[in-house]
Amino acid sequence: MSVGYSINDLLTPVVVIDETVMESNINVAQQYFNRIGRNFRPHIKTHKIPALASLQVAAGAKGINCQKISEAEVFADAGFTDILITFNMLGDARLDRLKALNAKVDLQVVADNGLVVEGLATRFNENAPLKVLVECDTGSERNGVQTPEEAVELAKQIDQKSGLTFHGLLTYPKPSSEADVEAFFAKTIDLLKREGLECPVVSHGGSPSLFDSDLVKCATEHRAGTYIFNDRSMVRAGMCDYEDCAMHVIATVVSRPTENRAVLDAGSKALTSDLLGFADHGRMIGYPEASIAKLSEEHAVVDLSRSQQKPQIGERVRIIPNHTCVVSNMFDKLVFHRDGVVTRIEPVSARGQVV
Amino acid sequence: MSVGYSINDLLTPVVVIDETVMESNINVAQQYFNRIGRNFRPHIKTHKIPALASLQVAAGAKGINCQKISEAEVFADAGFTDILITFNMLGDARLDRLKALNAKVDLQVVADNGLVVEGLATRFNENAPLKVLVECDTGSERNGVQTPEEAVELAKQIDQKSGLTFHGLLTYPKPSSEADVEAFFAKTIDLLKREGLECPVVSHGGSPSLFDSDLVKCATEHRAGTYIFNDRSMVRAGMCDYEDCAMHVIATVVSRPTENRAVLDAGSKALTSDLLGFADHGRMIGYPEASIAKLSEEHAVVDLSRSQQKPQIGERVRIIPNHTCVVSNMFDKLVFHRDGVVTRIEPVSARGQVV
Repeated sequence: MSVGYSINDLLTPVVVIDETVMESNINVAQQYFNRIGRNFRPHIKTHKIPALASLQVAAGAKGINCQKISEAEVFADAGFTDILITFNMLGDARLDRLKALNAKVDLQVVADNGLVVEGLATRFNENAPLKVLVECDTGSERNGVQTPEEAVELAKQIDQKSGLTFHGLLTYPKPSSEADVEAFFAKTIDLLKREGLECPVVSHGGSPSLFDSDLVKCATEHRAGTYIFNDRSMVRAGMCDYEDCAMHVIATVVSRPTENRAVLDAGSKALTSDLLGFADHGRMIGYPEASIAKLSEEHAVVDLSRSQQKPQIGERVRIIPNHTCVVSNMFDKLVFHRDGVVTRIEPVSARGQVV
Repeated sequence: MSVGYSINDLLTPVVVIDETVMESNINVAQQYFNRIGRNFRPHIKTHKIPALASLQVAAGAKGINCQKISEAEVFADAGFTDILITFNMLGDARLDRLKALNAKVDLQVVADNGLVVEGLATRFNENAPLKVLVECDTGSERNGVQTPEEAVELAKQIDQKSGLTFHGLLTYPKPSSEADVEAFFAKTIDLLKREGLECPVVSHGGSPSLFDSDLVKCATEHRAGTYIFNDRSMVRAGMCDYEDCAMHVIATVVSRPTENRAVLDAGSKALTSDLLGFADHGRMIGYPEASIAKLSEEHAVVDLSRSQQKPQIGERVRIIPNHTCVVSNMFDKLVFHRDGVVTRIEPVSARGQVV
C-alpha cells in the first residue's frame, strides 16, 4: 500500500477513492451552494478523515457537521473550529466532554426534547454559553419535535436558560420533501418571531436531494455527507451518475463453483449489509446483470444467471457500494488514487467513534 | 472505561461481554466435543481477540480457525501455532505472506479449484510443504466443489504437487443438513480410498447445529465461532437461550418524539445492518414487544406500538444483536464484566483485517 504503486497491486478487498472524482463532487456541490447563496456544512460521517474535511472547507464550506461527540473531538484536535453535532447529548460524562469542547471551538448542538435541554443547562453558563438548535421531524420519522408549536416551546425553554442560546432550527429531511420542510420551517419562524425569538440558523440537509436545497427558501444552511464519494443509492436518487462515484471496493473472484455462481473475497465486513432498499449488495462495474446476491462475513456470492459475461477466478472486480458512509467505517485506512496510481493513504481517524 | 467500574457508567453505545456466560459457552461446547471424541477448532472471526482464543485453547480446543491471512498473522504473532485458514488464497503478495506464515506455524489452508492449487504450488516445496484441505459445497451454496468426484480430482491435483500435501476435506454446511454432509463426505472418503489417498482431516462446522455435530459420523473436527458469545440468531436456531448470550450492546434512549417511537444512540455503525432473516435489528431486553424497526448510522428507531412498557428518555437499554460476529468487528475494544463490574478491556486485535 505505497504511494506511486498501481491500485491493481493492492491486496483485496480494498477501498479506493478516485481523487479527481472526489474533487469534482466537492466542487460541484459547493458551487451550487455559492450560486444559491447558502452556507454548506459537510457531514464528516461519510469519510471521518480530517484531510478530506480540509478540502471541503478550502472549497468554501462553512464548518463541519459531526454526528457524535467522539467524532467532533477528533476533528477539533485536527484543528477544525466550527462544529455542529447533530445529536441529543445525554449523560454526565458526555456533558463534561461537551463543555470541554465548547471551550475550544465554535460549537453548536441540537435538542428535540426538554430533558436534553435540562441536561445541557447543568453544564453551561453565561460566560461560555452553548448554541442549541431545535431538531424538527419534518417527515423522516427519526428524531425531532413533531410540530412548529412544539419547536417554539422548546426554543423558549432553551432561551430561558442562562447558559444556553437558542440558535435556530434543524431537520434531517425525508428525500424530496422540500415543500414539507419549507412549510414546517416557515410556520415555526413566524411563530418564533411573534415570541420575539431570533432564529439565525435554519439548517436543511441530505445528499439525495442536495441540488433541490434552493426549494427550501427559508433555509440558511445545508448539511450533507454522502455527496463527497457518492454511491449506488445516490445514482438511484438521480443525484449523480455511476461515473461520479469516487469510492470503489476492489475484490477478487476466488471461486466459480458453478456456471452461474462467482464468489468474491469481499463480504459484509467490507461492504456492510446496508441494502438501502436494494435487493442486492452493490453494483459490479462491467457486469451490470450480475447480482451480488448474498454476503457472509468474508464472501460475496454473485448470481451470474442473467449475466452473459462471467468473471474468471483470479479476476479483480470493482464494486460501487450501496452506501458509502458505512463502508469507510469498516476500514482503518482508505487508499486514494489518480488514474489508478496511489496518491496517498489516509487513516480513517474517527473510525468507530460512536459515543 | 476502567476495570472495577460499573458498566452502567460507560458511555453508550458500548459492547459488553459477560465473562461468566462466555466461559460457560466455551466449556459447554468443548465438553460436548470431548464427549463425542472430536477435535474442536474455534473460529476467531467472532471475537478477533487473542486472549479469548487462549481461553478456548485452554479449555481443550485443537488450534484455531481464521478466515483471512491478515487475521491469521495477528494470531500467529500472538503465539498461536496451529492455524487453519478457510479461504482460497490468490495473488502473489498474499502467497508470499502465506509462505512466511507456513514457516512459522502449523498451517492448513483450503482450495476448491485448480487455479488456487496451481498458485499455492508456485510457493511451496517438499522441504516445507503446505497442508491443503478440499472445500466441499454440501448445500450452503457458497464456496466448494460440487460433487465427491470433483473433490477427488482436486485432491489428486494437490497430491501431485511436491510442495503441497492433501490433508483432507472441509465444509461450511447449511444449518441442520447433517445427513447431506455425512453422505457427501462418506462418498468422497470412499472414492479417495480407492485412489490410495489418505484423508486425515474431515472438518465439519457451524454454530447453529453445533450440538448435532455427532450426526456427521465421519467428521474428525468441528469449527465454530458464534457459540462463544451467542446471539439472537442462535436463540432462534434453538442452539441456546437468551440467557446464554454473552454480548449485549448497551444504548441510551435519546428521544421519544411520539408515543410509539423511541430513538436510541446505537445505529448501523454499532449494531450493523445484518438481519439474518429477522425483520428488525436486535432484541431489547425487558421490552420483548418493542421492535428496533429502522437503523440509520447512529440512530435506532424503535417501534413501541405493540409494547405496553415504553422506555423513557435517558434510560439505558440492552440489546442482544442479531449477529454477534459482525458487531465485534465495529469496535476497537470490547468491555468485559462480571455482574456488571468491568473486569478487563480487550483490543479487538484483528478488527478490520479483511485481506
